[in-house]
Amino acid sequence: MNNYKLLIAYDGTAYHGWQIQPNGITIQEVIQKGIKLILRQDATVIGSGRTDAGVHAKGQVAHFKTGEEIDIRRFQHSLNGVLPKDIRILSMEKVSLSFHAQKDAISKIYHYHLFLNPVLDPFKKLYCLHLREKLDLNLLREAASLFVGKKDFTSFSNEAHKGACATDPVRTLERVDLVEEEGGIRIEFQADGFLYKMVRNITGCLLEVASHKIEISEIPKIFEAKDRKAAGQAAPGHPLFLMSVLYTR
Amino acid sequence: MNNYKLLIAYDGTAYHGWQIQPNGITIQEVIQKGIKLILRQDATVIGSGRTDAGVHAKGQVAHFKTGEEIDIRRFQHSLNGVLPKDIRILSMEKVSLSFHAQKDAISKIYHYHLFLNPVLDPFKKLYCLHLREKLDLNLLREAASLFVGKKDFTSFSNEAHKGACATDPVRTLERVDLVEEEGGIRIEFQADGFLYKMVRNITGCLLEVASHKIEISEIPKIFEAKDRKAAGQAAPGHPLFLMSVLYTR
Repeated sequence: MNNYKLLIAYDGTAYHGWQIQPNGITIQEVIQKGIKLILRQDATVIGSGRTDAGVHAKGQVAHFKTGEEIDIRRFQHSLNGVLPKDIRILSMEKVSLSFHAQKDAISKIYHYHLFLNPVLDPFKKLYCLHLREKLDLNLLREAASLFVGKKDFTSFSNEAHKGACATDPVRTLERVDLVEEEGGIRIEFQADGFLYKMVRNITGCLLEVASHKIEISEIPKIFEAKDRKAAGQAAPGHPLFLMSVLYTR
Repeated sequence: MNNYKLLIAYDGTAYHGWQIQPNGITIQEVIQKGIKLILRQDATVIGSGRTDAGVHAKGQVAHFKTGEEIDIRRFQHSLNGVLPKDIRILSMEKVSLSFHAQKDAISKIYHYHLFLNPVLDPFKKLYCLHLREKLDLNLLREAASLFVGKKDFTSFSNEAHKGACATDPVRTLERVDLVEEEGGIRIEFQADGFLYKMVRNITGCLLEVASHKIEISEIPKIFEAKDRKAAGQAAPGHPLFLMSVLYTR
């Protein structure tokens, strides 16, 4: 048996997220079909984690196992040849049999893009949240700092809604940084792991604070409630990018 | 009568170019319909020049005249409200009645994007030409320099093919610069005016030289021939952006 690690970029616009599901085409499914076309056998592609419908990736990581000994350069080229152009295998390597893209991930980085100019850049319409209302960026920065650290993120997780088995809701958010970019800002999140919809739920809460819809003093209370209903709406998925997944090896 | 100048950005992917034509939806047509929805009267929007099907703009300029005295801020907001999101009015100003977006333009800048990494960035698939073959960038730069200056560009123009009335084929190409960018390079063109398909025809020729399909010594002969058939194929339209149009006033 051989184990192969894939570094993947995708424009999520056309897909129902990463993970195979009955109601739409997903990225995992398309990649598995591509591999099957080449190897003529089934392979299960395991990603570092699911991304939601419309969410993009510049550095998703996945692995798959096969009895075949693969010529990596040739296989990557063939796989990109059969995949749609909005999914690209950026690189591929043979790894030890024990490597697991999800279980071995020690940290992930997500970027959430906010476009703040009054007139939207037409080339960013699929990749940014366009906010016409004025945001208080100092307040946004202050609120963001309240999320950093090792915390119980139950109020910012949709795990229960998906009937998932009990997941430990404690995660360490290593940083939440605001970075200026053309036309607006991005919020950079890095954590040892993210619960389901955690980035979008935190972003939704940050935007409510920065637009004076809730008080910043509410944030500790929302954490304490340990209830998804205590926090506001999730921000939309299309401005979100999975940038990279870090491993110790 | 009042005269209004528009600065426009558009993602050309979905359109059959700028100029109204019977066989497809064009940007000029969509903007005119938008203005009619707001003013409840017809207006002719005159652009600085046509852009081909699939070509994009970050700084197209146009003007239109109307008897109405327009509240500019409000009108721009309303127009962006009725236009599809891939066309945006970036700014609007009232100008003298004599201003003409096409006739008064003294210089234009176009960018043509080449993606040179073996694996295409999925977010650039609509905006770059992906070239897998190795380009000789020194040769490309040397060839580009042969196009700079005041020349007869008949061999690089499709004017005659469109049954257009005789246009002076002499243009001054002020610069053709190669600029490195993420994943590849862009070719920046600035001229006092461009003939129909001139940027795409020149780019097609440059790429043939840089991939050793024709000799650089052929370029002066192609100019001398004054015949579109003497030069090679036009490069595709989707990697081309109209960046800005310059006026003396």
